Amino acid sequence: MPPTPSSSLRAVSSRSFHISASLATPNKDHHVRIYPAEAFPKAFAVASTHAGIKKVKGALDLGLLASTSNRPTSAAACMTRNVFKAAPVTVTADLLHSSGGRAGGLIMNSGCANAVTGKQGLENAWRMSKGVTEGLQSNEGTLVMSTGVIGQQVPIENIEHAIPTLTSNLESTSESWSNLALAFMTTDTFPKLRTREFQLNGQTIRMVGIDKGAGMIAPSMGPPPPPHATLLGVIATDAAVEPKTLQSALQYAVDRSFNSITVDGDMSTNDTILCFANGAASQSAVELDEKTDPAGYKIFRDELRSLAEELAQLVVRDGEGATKFVTVRVKGAATYEMATKVARTIASSPLVKTAMYGEDANWGRILCAVGYSPDAESTISPTSVSVAFQPPSSMTDTTPFKVLTNGEPEQDIDETRAKEVLNQEDIEIVVDLGCGSEEVKVWTCDFSHDYVTINGSYRS
Amino acid sequence: MPPTPSSSLRAVSSRSFHISASLATPNKDHHVRIYPAEAFPKAFAVASTHAGIKKVKGALDLGLLASTSNRPTSAAACMTRNVFKAAPVTVTADLLHSSGGRAGGLIMNSGCANAVTGKQGLENAWRMSKGVTEGLQSNEGTLVMSTGVIGQQVPIENIEHAIPTLTSNLESTSESWSNLALAFMTTDTFPKLRTREFQLNGQTIRMVGIDKGAGMIAPSMGPPPPPHATLLGVIATDAAVEPKTLQSALQYAVDRSFNSITVDGDMSTNDTILCFANGAASQSAVELDEKTDPAGYKIFRDELRSLAEELAQLVVRDGEGATKFVTVRVKGAATYEMATKVARTIASSPLVKTAMYGEDANWGRILCAVGYSPDAESTISPTSVSVAFQPPSSMTDTTPFKVLTNGEPEQDIDETRAKEVLNQEDIEIVVDLGCGSEEVKVWTCDFSHDYVTINGSYRS
Repeated sequence: MPPTPSSSLRAVSSRSFHISASLATPNKDHHVRIYPAEAFPKAFAVASTHAGIKKVKGALDLGLLASTSNRPTSAAACMTRNVFKAAPVTVTADLLHSSGGRAGGLIMNSGCANAVTGKQGLENAWRMSKGVTEGLQSNEGTLVMSTGVIGQQVPIENIEHAIPTLTSNLESTSESWSNLALAFMTTDTFPKLRTREFQLNGQTIRMVGIDKGAGMIAPSMGPPPPPHATLLGVIATDAAVEPKTLQSALQYAVDRSFNSITVDGDMSTNDTILCFANGAASQSAVELDEKTDPAGYKIFRDELRSLAEELAQLVVRDGEGATKFVTVRVKGAATYEMATKVARTIASSPLVKTAMYGEDANWGRILCAVGYSPDAESTISPTSVSVAFQPPSSMTDTTPFKVLTNGEPEQDIDETRAKEVLNQEDIEIVVDLGCGSEEVKVWTCDFSHDYVTINGSYRS
Repeated sequence: MPPTPSSSLRAVSSRSFHISASLATPNKDHHVRIYPAEAFPKAFAVASTHAGIKKVKGALDLGLLASTSNRPTSAAACMTRNVFKAAPVTVTADLLHSSGGRAGGLIMNSGCANAVTGKQGLENAWRMSKGVTEGLQSNEGTLVMSTGVIGQQVPIENIEHAIPTLTSNLESTSESWSNLALAFMTTDTFPKLRTREFQLNGQTIRMVGIDKGAGMIAPSMGPPPPPHATLLGVIATDAAVEPKTLQSALQYAVDRSFNSITVDGDMSTNDTILCFANGAASQSAVELDEKTDPAGYKIFRDELRSLAEELAQLVVRDGEGATKFVTVRVKGAATYEMATKVARTIASSPLVKTAMYGEDANWGRILCAVGYSPDAESTISPTSVSVAFQPPSSMTDTTPFKVLTNGEPEQDIDETRAKEVLNQEDIEIVVDLGCGSEEVKVWTCDFSHDYVTINGSYRS
């Protein structure tokens, strides 16, 4: 018998967030945090509204983030590599390219992905961007992000009608930031918002991040416009960072966070992570440059990675049907690329993921996945591979639970302890390839009955 | 609400095959066929027995296939590329390498994969091979195949004890072949046996194939030895074929059959397809050589492909929890490799597979998968891609049901017809890449609640 799922990582009660206009509503979800206004970076302001894109009346579905700094704002983006790029992805890429990495803010909508929408879709995405830029009388462009059903046009008149409401209500309060996180949501069960504060070259720097997860079941009542998975995120900081350096730091952070999670291995047409740096922390600071200040760059990059990692993990915890948060750690690899390939293969294996759901210490499936990783034939030596489960720090005994050592199965495995370790919400699979010193972590969730229920639902 | 699975493609009642010693027991499964003795190739004989490897008393778990031809027997193999190769895989590869593609037969066991078993496992696999070769006083080697749980040693004494029973009971009857198919089974719900007869250079050639599917839940009561997925198959023919030509034809056939199916994308440590050709159809025929007789080679290769395709499809129909048999046809590709990559990506997408389970014409998920196929960025033009569902021939109206044409979604999709087409057991997704003339088919099944139940089961 499969186990009865004890409880989903996603708090079902928090689905009320879809129609909640504010975080003032009490909630029990431990993944939601409320921050004081001072936690947010200086000279960024945000606003959200209901523009009628989501079907649920009053649900926030249009958001704006703008730099109010008098210094130029650097902007960077990591975007989907899917061939079918949504219109907002194209517009954002074009804007960043032509401006050399400067942009004053972002307009985003949920409820409609503006993907596979042809010329009309592209025109609409440009109208969203220009509507904000003109409304703010800004001399910096406005980036665009969309998420929701694909194959449908955005209701552009509604959006243009709502833009003045956004531009005239920009503020930086606990509530305005929380509302922006709500506006990002599609099938997420809780809003995702995190902040950071750190010292950089004698200045206090603040950073805020919002993201949304790879939910699939955007309720769509009409003809086909199918549900659609998208990972969207934005990070804003008041550090002063030169555009190329910001792009470099963001790519580093995204590779080790958003690019290191997988819920079901599918890559959306809209996936986008943006980062803005407006220099408002200090009027005098010169823009951080990785070439001239490598030490400062390393501090900034690592803080960005840390925030991105936290945001990315929230998406996994909110994964469809997830009952387990699974960390796949691959160490002892000859190269970072090799470790990544092995870790991603394990984390994407339906057999490994169903075994985690079943709380089954099934090292055979893990080993199998290691063995068919890309390029495994030329890079992995079977007799040097070890596999263990690392119990979470919440357990009394955190000794690694070894199942395979140098290619040989452990004898006399303690099934009681196996059950205890795998019974935890957080499971860490540790694979040591025994051929180097590189290490990579990838995060995923299990495959549950609820996953099938959610994604197998007929759209009606 | 997800649909209630109407009926699994796997007939649960046929699980009784596990303990049935013969196909004499009536069964209702339309995938099981009984052939007359004349349907089998000349001068091959088989035997099966219960050697106590499977826990179920009396279940056939050891099988032998031997050529009794007085001509040399050619043998070819396509084997797993998994780094963690099981002992029998190594032994079979060594034997074929040293003999230049000649072998007199095959010993196979189910119930234990002899994988991750170190030196002892390798020694045991050699003992199985040599036990048969000596027992038959053959001057050709005996190949080995194993399937079942991994990390456990085969009970080699039991096997050696049973070998004389096999060698003294070799025959070619309807029952002996059916029993060999039963001995191959692990979690399969029905035995898989097919035959072919065709003309080659004026001779009547017979061909028989047996395979087993990628079942995962070999019941294992002891400590960890985890359940294990394996695809095993053997094809025997009385054609006379030169070893290199046989290998070439087998690789061609396997690429278009067994390598073109996916149940969950995992590649086992034991996957093996063997082919034997003993030349017994005619004492005078020279061995077929692809260089000197390309026309004959093409006939043979295509018959082999056709048989392999039928055997491979049986595995998909017996896929764990499968309620749908899904054909992914990618046409209009610039190259065969490109078509294969796209088709495999679609067929492996959990989102596509859950949509098929939910009978959802979700072209967005299909398009997404096309867009993130390997090398899609450099090979696929979004505006030339079309997607349709091809209704099966059992439907009255077999007009392709178009959902996307040249990158533009179809307007006014008929939801009633969508439901009818996707309500069928057999679903065909047709993707036209619009950039060439190459075509590939990949077969898969859906992802159902039962898949999760089967693979999420704790081993106890």
